[in-house]
Amino acid sequence: MKVFMIGEAANHKDKLAAFLTTSCDIVPLPREAAQSSEFDSAISADDVVVSLRFSRRDGPAPDFRLMHVPGAGLDGIDMASVPAGTGICNVFEHEIPIAEFVMAAMLNWEIRPEALRASFTTDTWPDVYRSRVPHGEICGLTLGLVGFGRIGRTIARRARAFGMRIVAVDQFAEDTDGLADAILPPDRLPEMLAGADFLVIACPLTDRTRNLIGAAEFAAMKPTGVLVNVSRAPIVDEAALYDALSRRTIGGAVLDVWYGYPAGADDRVAPSRFRFEELPNAVCTPHSSAWTTRLPERRYAFIARNIDRLAAGEPLLNLVREPVPASRPAIQDTSVP
Amino acid sequence: MKVFMIGEAANHKDKLAAFLTTSCDIVPLPREAAQSSEFDSAISADDVVVSLRFSRRDGPAPDFRLMHVPGAGLDGIDMASVPAGTGICNVFEHEIPIAEFVMAAMLNWEIRPEALRASFTTDTWPDVYRSRVPHGEICGLTLGLVGFGRIGRTIARRARAFGMRIVAVDQFAEDTDGLADAILPPDRLPEMLAGADFLVIACPLTDRTRNLIGAAEFAAMKPTGVLVNVSRAPIVDEAALYDALSRRTIGGAVLDVWYGYPAGADDRVAPSRFRFEELPNAVCTPHSSAWTTRLPERRYAFIARNIDRLAAGEPLLNLVREPVPASRPAIQDTSVP
Repeated sequence: MKVFMIGEAANHKDKLAAFLTTSCDIVPLPREAAQSSEFDSAISADDVVVSLRFSRRDGPAPDFRLMHVPGAGLDGIDMASVPAGTGICNVFEHEIPIAEFVMAAMLNWEIRPEALRASFTTDTWPDVYRSRVPHGEICGLTLGLVGFGRIGRTIARRARAFGMRIVAVDQFAEDTDGLADAILPPDRLPEMLAGADFLVIACPLTDRTRNLIGAAEFAAMKPTGVLVNVSRAPIVDEAALYDALSRRTIGGAVLDVWYGYPAGADDRVAPSRFRFEELPNAVCTPHSSAWTTRLPERRYAFIARNIDRLAAGEPLLNLVREPVPASRPAIQDTSVP
Repeated sequence: MKVFMIGEAANHKDKLAAFLTTSCDIVPLPREAAQSSEFDSAISADDVVVSLRFSRRDGPAPDFRLMHVPGAGLDGIDMASVPAGTGICNVFEHEIPIAEFVMAAMLNWEIRPEALRASFTTDTWPDVYRSRVPHGEICGLTLGLVGFGRIGRTIARRARAFGMRIVAVDQFAEDTDGLADAILPPDRLPEMLAGADFLVIACPLTDRTRNLIGAAEFAAMKPTGVLVNVSRAPIVDEAALYDALSRRTIGGAVLDVWYGYPAGADDRVAPSRFRFEELPNAVCTPHSSAWTTRLPERRYAFIARNIDRLAAGEPLLNLVREPVPASRPAIQDTSVP
């Protein structure tokens, strides 16, 4: 068995090697191998391909065993280009840093540690000590989650330990772990908005969620309510958000995701039509919530475990597309002379 | 029943009134009533006194029912001045904001949200986005707790939800809630220090804990280890701490408690002999961890509940000194003519 790592994935060759117990060759391939059949002759039926992107112009690549995407999103994979007999797995793990980012955002909104730190000087200590202004707590506050999937539940597990009240809006989710105080259907979003101290967007961007939070939703929120978006910017109406923040209809926002991203090296795109970072009640960060040193470690440890399972004939984790067993052509059984 | 609220406690008269279901007069008394018998004649055997301080020069005050301290510390109460038949209760609740402060401190150490925020500008967005530097996570890190009392356990409950490993050093504590991975006796402190990514001081200052963390202990820590002190400064040797931080023997420190506090309005005391706030790896805050708007609300809600229990003849919560029932003098039974 060989493991081909294409493009960015090849940068993590050593991580995968460190976690694998199965003995196999790890072969880095250049970025072009994702789109070109030029390297296909090296790939055989027993092999694994690890890549965020995969497409073939002229029908599927030759058979291989497993396509392991080293991320959650499958938008880089052209399903028709992956042979039908090849299983496809993905990997998550980003819910952990995202949940940490969201918890830090809520705690910092209440505690304001940077202001406390800025106030501290040796020379003014007696005055600083005596004039301390009490801050807030997240204990007892209500966390409103839009979406109660993997990310929402990972946030909820942490928020619950702090004594927050958790109300999620989700059409399908069930609360098998008993993490939420309530899970409401989408038509009860206004009720959730009215009670939420923090409104955290934790759903995917789809046709149904685009502009889900607009002027009417901001009007339904508490005047102190804080939006935290770590999912996709367009779930929140850009102009309505700027309006709600600048007119202080809501308390504020922590924004880690944006309306424009650079496509290439020379793309001078703006993150938004509005300069959110100039608003004092907007905390703007550059899509950093899941951008941790440990995320690739955890992801490649998972992929290594899955390759070990494959080698041992055990069922794969996060199998998003089952391999279709190659049907034996009827002729094979009957044409024997 | 009357409830006398002395000095600072009297500022919270309305909070207590809002939470009480028992009908009783709430009487504010000036700060002097804590030390002077001048107001004692108003206090009768059925009454409650709420005060952080209480002392009488010439033996105990006249009998009253309950002394409720509106804080955890009893150092302001001269026990001999409180009549033997009077019960004494205290109140905690500060473990919640302290735990939130500690969790925020650890998350911020790893995530550095202020640096992320500072990096974000519309004009440099494409470069900022492409040159993001991965940050850390607390998941999987080891939290070393010095002390596993109320505060330590409240921190542990939250840290556990984040997937931290929790090792506490405590002579007496038992882990009835299964929150810690290990509770070690004090002689195994070096072992805990060697494994801790964060070392949180959560024990009281006593003769045994003064200077508990000194040069040898800093030397035993990981070079990336971070000290968080939300307890009392003198548990950590002042000069050894400055040395460890300035020479970068350890990764850093979050310091919310200090070596000097102003005693009166004109006291120009310094927080420390050293200017810790000038060290880039020291985060200094002015004893703010428990200084929240909700803390007095929660404390007076607790006190109101306890007064309601007293009125209903139910056992009191947080009874730190049982009332000694008045012994009927033998003479009373025999001297009847």
